[in-house]
Amino acid sequence: MKANPPPLEKLIRKLAKLPGLGEKSASRIAMHLLRASREEVDSLAEALRQIKTQIRTCGRCYHFTDGEICAICTDPQRANGTLCVVESTADLVAIEQSGAFQGRYHVLQGVLAPLDGVGPDQLRIKELIQRLETEGIQEVILATNPSSEGEATAHYLMKLLQNKAIKVSRIGFGIPMGGDVKYVDQVTIQRSLAGRRPVD
Amino acid sequence: MKANPPPLEKLIRKLAKLPGLGEKSASRIAMHLLRASREEVDSLAEALRQIKTQIRTCGRCYHFTDGEICAICTDPQRANGTLCVVESTADLVAIEQSGAFQGRYHVLQGVLAPLDGVGPDQLRIKELIQRLETEGIQEVILATNPSSEGEATAHYLMKLLQNKAIKVSRIGFGIPMGGDVKYVDQVTIQRSLAGRRPVD
Repeated sequence: MKANPPPLEKLIRKLAKLPGLGEKSASRIAMHLLRASREEVDSLAEALRQIKTQIRTCGRCYHFTDGEICAICTDPQRANGTLCVVESTADLVAIEQSGAFQGRYHVLQGVLAPLDGVGPDQLRIKELIQRLETEGIQEVILATNPSSEGEATAHYLMKLLQNKAIKVSRIGFGIPMGGDVKYVDQVTIQRSLAGRRPVD
Repeated sequence: MKANPPPLEKLIRKLAKLPGLGEKSASRIAMHLLRASREEVDSLAEALRQIKTQIRTCGRCYHFTDGEICAICTDPQRANGTLCVVESTADLVAIEQSGAFQGRYHVLQGVLAPLDGVGPDQLRIKELIQRLETEGIQEVILATNPSSEGEATAHYLMKLLQNKAIKVSRIGFGIPMGGDVKYVDQVTIQRSLAGRRPVD
């Protein structure tokens, strides 16, 4: 039943382990690469290797970078006193692509998850507190996800920051654009009502 | 708006060009690989390179192989006088995985498509005819797809083989397992009725 030669099977197995790919899609990609030029496949293999040799974590905000400090942290225009705290780089990228935020970020590299052994010391919270002083931050926007861990992390940070002379805010939750009130889950509706704003 | 460092963007762009992947899924895979160990990423890169250096086309059936002749063609148990003709290696793999076929295959490496300049000489038809004699084939199963090109190719082969002392058959078409007569398209219903079989 092993219809493919071993090197091809090996590649398919490796590809199938990547997030979002299954055996069918991995097999389709492998077939595509077999038809592709050798240069194309070699350059993909090289690009894969390069992210491991050239990408490191920004020494300030913990975003990915190919230098010491990332492009956002080195851009003086982004030093507007606002810091957006996110769980992961993927969240940072999504916010950045929305174009709605002009300040700097701080990537926690996770969320509080006591059952998994992740406490405040495992996250970049100490580093966050240090940045508040050295960078003269006036507002911290908590953009952790609306999961129980994300909420717990936001609450922990809220308490930690409440005695400092810093404005702390939480991103808004509610019905997503294109969503439909009648199809949205109850918790989202509760959050949406709790987060209602006066019409001006 | 380019939130990622250049080497990461490069990998995401390359991954996003693969079939079935878009920018979101490519970005998710790239993030996963950044978190993965260097060994893991290097071995994926190596597996990619290896398919280009180690995989070639079987000199007999045109399936992929890492030797001269593929595992199916070298297996004496598969020499049962039946030859299944398919368009592509992907079709071969699907049939092989069904476990329903015990003979050998012949991959045409395409279908007749006059508008795209693909005539009989561009397909492995000459090689198919040669195999019929040298391998003592008694039955040829035409397993090209039920597309207009696949049907045209099957008809062409049917005519080509009709004067030889060889049984020629076409795979069955109809309602797929788990399908529903009321949701299936008209052509499938027509094929399903035309292909009806007496109940025994």
